[in-house]
Amino acid sequence: MRVSVEFLPRGSYPDIVLLVDVLRASTSIALLFERGAREVWVTPSLRLARELEADLALGEREGIPPEGFFGSTSPSEILEMDLSGKRVVYTSENLPGALRAVKEAPRVYLAAFVNARAAVETALRAAREAVTVVAAGHRGREALDDALAAGFLAKKLLRAKPEAVPDDGARIASALLKAYPDPQEALWASESGQLLVSRGFTEDLAQASVIGRTSRVPLLAGYREVRGQPVFTLVADEPA
Amino acid sequence: MRVSVEFLPRGSYPDIVLLVDVLRASTSIALLFERGAREVWVTPSLRLARELEADLALGEREGIPPEGFFGSTSPSEILEMDLSGKRVVYTSENLPGALRAVKEAPRVYLAAFVNARAAVETALRAAREAVTVVAAGHRGREALDDALAAGFLAKKLLRAKPEAVPDDGARIASALLKAYPDPQEALWASESGQLLVSRGFTEDLAQASVIGRTSRVPLLAGYREVRGQPVFTLVADEPA
Repeated sequence: MRVSVEFLPRGSYPDIVLLVDVLRASTSIALLFERGAREVWVTPSLRLARELEADLALGEREGIPPEGFFGSTSPSEILEMDLSGKRVVYTSENLPGALRAVKEAPRVYLAAFVNARAAVETALRAAREAVTVVAAGHRGREALDDALAAGFLAKKLLRAKPEAVPDDGARIASALLKAYPDPQEALWASESGQLLVSRGFTEDLAQASVIGRTSRVPLLAGYREVRGQPVFTLVADEPA
Repeated sequence: MRVSVEFLPRGSYPDIVLLVDVLRASTSIALLFERGAREVWVTPSLRLARELEADLALGEREGIPPEGFFGSTSPSEILEMDLSGKRVVYTSENLPGALRAVKEAPRVYLAAFVNARAAVETALRAAREAVTVVAAGHRGREALDDALAAGFLAKKLLRAKPEAVPDDGARIASALLKAYPDPQEALWASESGQLLVSRGFTEDLAQASVIGRTSRVPLLAGYREVRGQPVFTLVADEPA
């Protein structure tokens, strides 16, 4: 068994991928399932999000949900929603590009601090030979929040499978835990964190750093294009 | 002034690049200039290296210099060479790809632990707006040795210019120094380090982790293709 970490998606995966976009998509989508969502469709386009035939859409323009949207993509707000049985459209600038880069992997899960334990168990149950933890990054650049969460997941994977072989990426990411024993500090220091703070989503940094709040692990279950825009379908998996 | 770190070359640079391939090319090439070399030509091809009209060629096949080569690319061996005024061909599997990815930057230097102080001073003297420290990585994947050296350089840059703004890459790389206060430990743990050890180049890990042994900073001064293979010309710069 190999445990690898990539600081940005590179796009060739032999087995299981844990895709990490801590602030906020992988955090928020895990929590959507925790709140009962049946299916989540991820797309970058606010216009398309409005037109897709789901039960409700979440998204923001400069921090505010545009007209016709049920709410924002903030984990703090999601935790107060009742989404039982709903199909939810989730708009994200950042996640669709990362999903596109990893979608050919045999299996892709979303992982974050909030579902770390469950994501590790689910990945190890499904893995034949390798788990690659892929940090989504932010606008095509390495992101501190994702790198730290990737290190946290890699360390958990290696603890659960002491015979597994880490790569240098896993060594680098795990080493970050020494410098940031409290994830929240890294989230505050990160560019994504500062952007959220500037938009008034300070509480999201606390929510995104809670470890193991949910056992739901979003699984990439489908991909289609609608009017030239990608739409990814996610469903919930969880440890047996 | 911005200070950024990339864990693999991505290829769009506004200003100064410090390219890091600690084991071994950026280490060894800095030492070639320390030993008096006038010019270094870097190419991936052993065959081409033999044919280029330089004074001598360095390279290895499975750890041994092939016939017609003056010696290996080991820093330990280079430190014993007298290369005064020589034009040296340096063959490397890894560096040419990284050089190709960064070559459009306004200025590219090679940096390592052995020339860290000089590389930082030279970069800051030349920089208008940004220094990007680019870890070459190993075979297209993040490398612990390069990531740590990149963090070391980023930290030195930020100390010298306290008003400079780090990006998340610089934060991640600098954080590694907490986990690896002794660079040699990281070099030993790295995949490149283990590969060198397996080929009998154990001493290189010690040589590559000596900080500030030379004030020579290799500068990318030219690029040409010869029979479909890249040849990069490097010359020595140093702090004023």
